[in-house]
Amino acid sequence: MSAYDEHSVGLVDTDVLHIDKPIKLACGIVLAEHHLYFETYGRLNSERSNAILICHALSGSHHAAGWHAGDRKPGWWDHYIGPGKAMDTERFFIVSPNNIGSCFGSTGPMTINPETEKPWGPDFPPLRARDWMESQKMLMSHFAIDCWAAVVGGSLGGMQAMRWSLEYPEKLLNSIVIASAMKLSAQNIAFNEIARRAIKSDPDYLSGRYLEEHSVPRRGLALARMIGHVTYLSDVAMAEKFGRELHSGNFLVGKTDPIEFQIESYLNYQGDKFADDFDANTYILITKMLDYFDLSREYCHDPVEAFKHASCNFLVISFTSDWRFPAQRSREITDALIGAGKNVSYAEIQSDQGHDAFLLPNQRYEKILGGYLSRVADRLGVVDE
Amino acid sequence: MSAYDEHSVGLVDTDVLHIDKPIKLACGIVLAEHHLYFETYGRLNSERSNAILICHALSGSHHAAGWHAGDRKPGWWDHYIGPGKAMDTERFFIVSPNNIGSCFGSTGPMTINPETEKPWGPDFPPLRARDWMESQKMLMSHFAIDCWAAVVGGSLGGMQAMRWSLEYPEKLLNSIVIASAMKLSAQNIAFNEIARRAIKSDPDYLSGRYLEEHSVPRRGLALARMIGHVTYLSDVAMAEKFGRELHSGNFLVGKTDPIEFQIESYLNYQGDKFADDFDANTYILITKMLDYFDLSREYCHDPVEAFKHASCNFLVISFTSDWRFPAQRSREITDALIGAGKNVSYAEIQSDQGHDAFLLPNQRYEKILGGYLSRVADRLGVVDE
Repeated sequence: MSAYDEHSVGLVDTDVLHIDKPIKLACGIVLAEHHLYFETYGRLNSERSNAILICHALSGSHHAAGWHAGDRKPGWWDHYIGPGKAMDTERFFIVSPNNIGSCFGSTGPMTINPETEKPWGPDFPPLRARDWMESQKMLMSHFAIDCWAAVVGGSLGGMQAMRWSLEYPEKLLNSIVIASAMKLSAQNIAFNEIARRAIKSDPDYLSGRYLEEHSVPRRGLALARMIGHVTYLSDVAMAEKFGRELHSGNFLVGKTDPIEFQIESYLNYQGDKFADDFDANTYILITKMLDYFDLSREYCHDPVEAFKHASCNFLVISFTSDWRFPAQRSREITDALIGAGKNVSYAEIQSDQGHDAFLLPNQRYEKILGGYLSRVADRLGVVDE
Repeated sequence: MSAYDEHSVGLVDTDVLHIDKPIKLACGIVLAEHHLYFETYGRLNSERSNAILICHALSGSHHAAGWHAGDRKPGWWDHYIGPGKAMDTERFFIVSPNNIGSCFGSTGPMTINPETEKPWGPDFPPLRARDWMESQKMLMSHFAIDCWAAVVGGSLGGMQAMRWSLEYPEKLLNSIVIASAMKLSAQNIAFNEIARRAIKSDPDYLSGRYLEEHSVPRRGLALARMIGHVTYLSDVAMAEKFGRELHSGNFLVGKTDPIEFQIESYLNYQGDKFADDFDANTYILITKMLDYFDLSREYCHDPVEAFKHASCNFLVISFTSDWRFPAQRSREITDALIGAGKNVSYAEIQSDQGHDAFLLPNQRYEKILGGYLSRVADRLGVVDE
């Protein structure tokens, strides 16, 4: 894939918006100001009606599509964003922020707390999906957009897309909820807690003050990623990709050379790479945000009651081999939407790729997402530019 | 449950057997001598035909049934071993060793290496299931038993039961293989490797020399157990037992008290408890043994060819919600046995308890195991004593 492919958005720049309007977080703490890194792809039309908000998940960033100079790979959702792609930048204006609390530039644990003049670190306030939504709404105002054509996200991104539909029903026409859930299961929370404990057990974590001490809890972060990574993949995908192939050693009787399977070497590599790129406090903060999300907590724990507040249309997508956010969770979303009398399309996509499927090429997924958004654009009267 | 229940084997003692016959391990290393801790329940009949060998799994010990003085709970398989129970001690003589490499007394990483006069630690030779079998065979000789009425085990225990059937076909009449597999999947290996890395990442691991330094890698061992524990439970069982119940904190807006779910508190407790009871080098050694097991590696990777060497009867049992050793793995064992023309019964037991089901009360499991063994005793002419 090249930066100059006709379906690529090509080289992209990152912008930053400084927001000095205070934001009151769900926990009650007020951030007096914050900044958001973001990217946009495509052009906002004169009616300002063709904007799509991309909501990233746990480890995502604003860099969803195109290439940064010198990079060896494009943004994380590049397969689905570009001219003629499912999220067609010839028809839509795509806004992709890095959310607060994350570690790719926006205000979060790695940025300086103006009150202490030190990094926020572990003191960054606990966040809820609605806090991301409020901050995204400020970015929306910056562009003078009144209504998103669609809010789209996978996993934690889908949680934001649902939250938007309940809290600001008049501010979006479509909510696209991919590989998500109305709340995490005990098993999901368990894996997140093990990852957090791995980080906190690392002596280099220094109770979260590692930045001040020029330390990095690499071992803990690598373990956290390895745990996450296994749960994003399916058993079948791992069997096909790695099987029981050996990386080193052998089973000849009489040999004691260390035996390492390919899957071990792969996972260790992925863990170490992640430890170079991500922030430990951010990982703790955002996994807790995932755990805390409960769509209908404030609606008497009744998802049908919750979705009665929505007025947009919905597209819900799941993947058959996803065991972190199984198809059953998406069917529950769909059932609740039907119960609330909402307009919903549901697609369960055959895939061996586990939870990661929402990021990977898949023809049927591409057609369903692209077809849905193409009809959205048609209804808005958006033409190819 | 009390030690004096009529179906309990009651108070039991542990024995130890010193074996000075050298054992050549699969890796080629020779252990000049070793000792085995073991327990027995029931009485060996005069024909020496009513003996059952119990093969423990990763974290098991010789203490499978009954009570040790002062203990608050009985052995790990107590529900299935005792007078009138599925493994009926009024009809069978049950032999339950702690296998070499484990940490409950038998020769392993925690015992002294006579050559260095220090604990074996990380230098204990890599083991394969066949090494456990060879050592168990020495215990068999100690009792002058020529043929086991049955070799029984769950998980890694089932792997030993299968290995016995191939290597010493004339030495067992029945192989009972519960919640097991002919080899681990890439996903299984991945979880084991993360657990091992958690242990090795703990600075108190000291490259495995922690015993000499009076240190214990508790943090790593706790993490390893937490990872294992989640994979032994099913999503459904966790949802039923813990759901999203809170242990502390609440979601009221304006609150920043730390929120902890019940599942988090439970898992952390289980991890810490395990770190008190188990040995880190043993965990590494035995998870590798699990990874290495491949029933048909030496039989041209053809399980049908492998099982042609067996001559005993088989009972294969799986549990519907077990995702670590899914029912599909047991169906593959059964299919290979049928392909090899062997006599096999297969039961897929409905259970929400995940892999742990093989240790837990379940009426259908109890009846199938008890019924099978009762017919074994009948055929042997064993009467209630």
